[in-house]
Amino acid sequence: MNLLNIGNPVFEVYAITAAIMVLKVMLQGWMTVYRMLKSNAGLVNPEDLQLGLINKEPHPGQLELSDYVDRSRRMHRNDLENIPAFLAAGLLFVAVNPALWLAQVLMYGFVFARIAHFAAYATQQIHEIRATFYTLGSLIVIYMVGHVLWSVLS
Amino acid sequence: MNLLNIGNPVFEVYAITAAIMVLKVMLQGWMTVYRMLKSNAGLVNPEDLQLGLINKEPHPGQLELSDYVDRSRRMHRNDLENIPAFLAAGLLFVAVNPALWLAQVLMYGFVFARIAHFAAYATQQIHEIRATFYTLGSLIVIYMVGHVLWSVLS
Amino acid sequence: MNLLNIGNPVFEVYAITAAIMVLKVMLQGWMTVYRMLKSNAGLVNPEDLQLGLINKEPHPGQLELSDYVDRSRRMHRNDLENIPAFLAAGLLFVAVNPALWLAQVLMYGFVFARIAHFAAYATQQIHEIRATFYTLGSLIVIYMVGHVLWSVLS
Repeated sequence: MNLLNIGNPVFEVYAITAAIMVLKVMLQGWMTVYRMLKSNAGLVNPEDLQLGLINKEPHPGQLELSDYVDRSRRMHRNDLENIPAFLAAGLLFVAVNPALWLAQVLMYGFVFARIAHFAAYATQQIHEIRATFYTLGSLIVIYMVGHVLWSVLS
Repeated sequence: MNLLNIGNPVFEVYAITAAIMVLKVMLQGWMTVYRMLKSNAGLVNPEDLQLGLINKEPHPGQLELSDYVDRSRRMHRNDLENIPAFLAAGLLFVAVNPALWLAQVLMYGFVFARIAHFAAYATQQIHEIRATFYTLGSLIVIYMVGHVLWSVLS
Repeated sequence: MNLLNIGNPVFEVYAITAAIMVLKVMLQGWMTVYRMLKSNAGLVNPEDLQLGLINKEPHPGQLELSDYVDRSRRMHRNDLENIPAFLAAGLLFVAVNPALWLAQVLMYGFVFARIAHFAAYATQQIHEIRATFYTLGSLIVIYMVGHVLWSVLS
């Protein structure tokens, strides 16, 4: 039986949700770029203070911390702390042949949790809201690897 | 022959060790949360200074760097620099059909190295101890991808 | 049909490029170590100021930010924002059975983009050069997951 294959509906759920989550990570990088360009601030490399197409009016203050730009970097870091773990956990989860409905609930649930976390973080909602969605995503990944360990070891 | 499948003992070793390492990454996030709550410090977002269930006595000093909390974030960063690479390297390693004993030595060795690194970092051991376990984990991943390249290209 | 398998030429392209990219991530860690040792600076943990084999002349200034060392950490962070996403996107891409030439162009293109990005970053080239290679790598990953979504959903 080949589970890691298009044709296995659980793998298809994984492929769709993993692709969306990869897209989320990549677009977060572009959000940082957009915010750097829009605010003309939040640069991190001394050589970026050179005059050029991207930086038309360089000044040393551009290397100072900008919450507007750094927020996108913090969101990115939070993605990196959660999404690669989901990508691996999801693949392992497919390999232990779970029920389709369970895979759908967990994987689409993770996508929902991370998009809601993004929205709460970007709009500076209070800690409790952001933490709720972080917790949801985190518990889903923890459940998935627990399920994998249980399946393989029992 | 389908190697990426429960039933292949090498894949099972990978599934167990990868699941443990994903769990390690996720729990590091919760260690940061625990340390923020316990010390009431080490916050990184201005909006977290609002009064709420999580933050009952907000004050601006909570945004200052706290080594206690930041240590957990540095440990997390070190995880992110090593564990996703292991997760990918391990899957590729399974795909080139290595000897079971070799997969066991390398994969359980990596888990051991990272848990020992965690313990040394959390308890602030001298650099030499932390560096030893970092090196062990890093060399295992480097060996695995070298083995993969050799198998595929030769 | 088992696509995630040595013997499928597209999977072999993935295995080679993914292994190279894992190696890139791991070696970036060693570049940071090398730069810390060479410059005797850029440490991040208070306990590393203890006298020992690695640190023979400790002084508090070693904990200050060093652009020489931090540059390698920033390069590492940029890797983590791109390479794990590529590793997952590439595997999903293999699973939707793309044309071999397309996989070769995209995957070797990504490796080229990241090595060129590394060279531009390490030698402090102007923003425009670094940004060009970042963009190339980013668009390749975004294309791959778009292709996966299109294949699975259509």
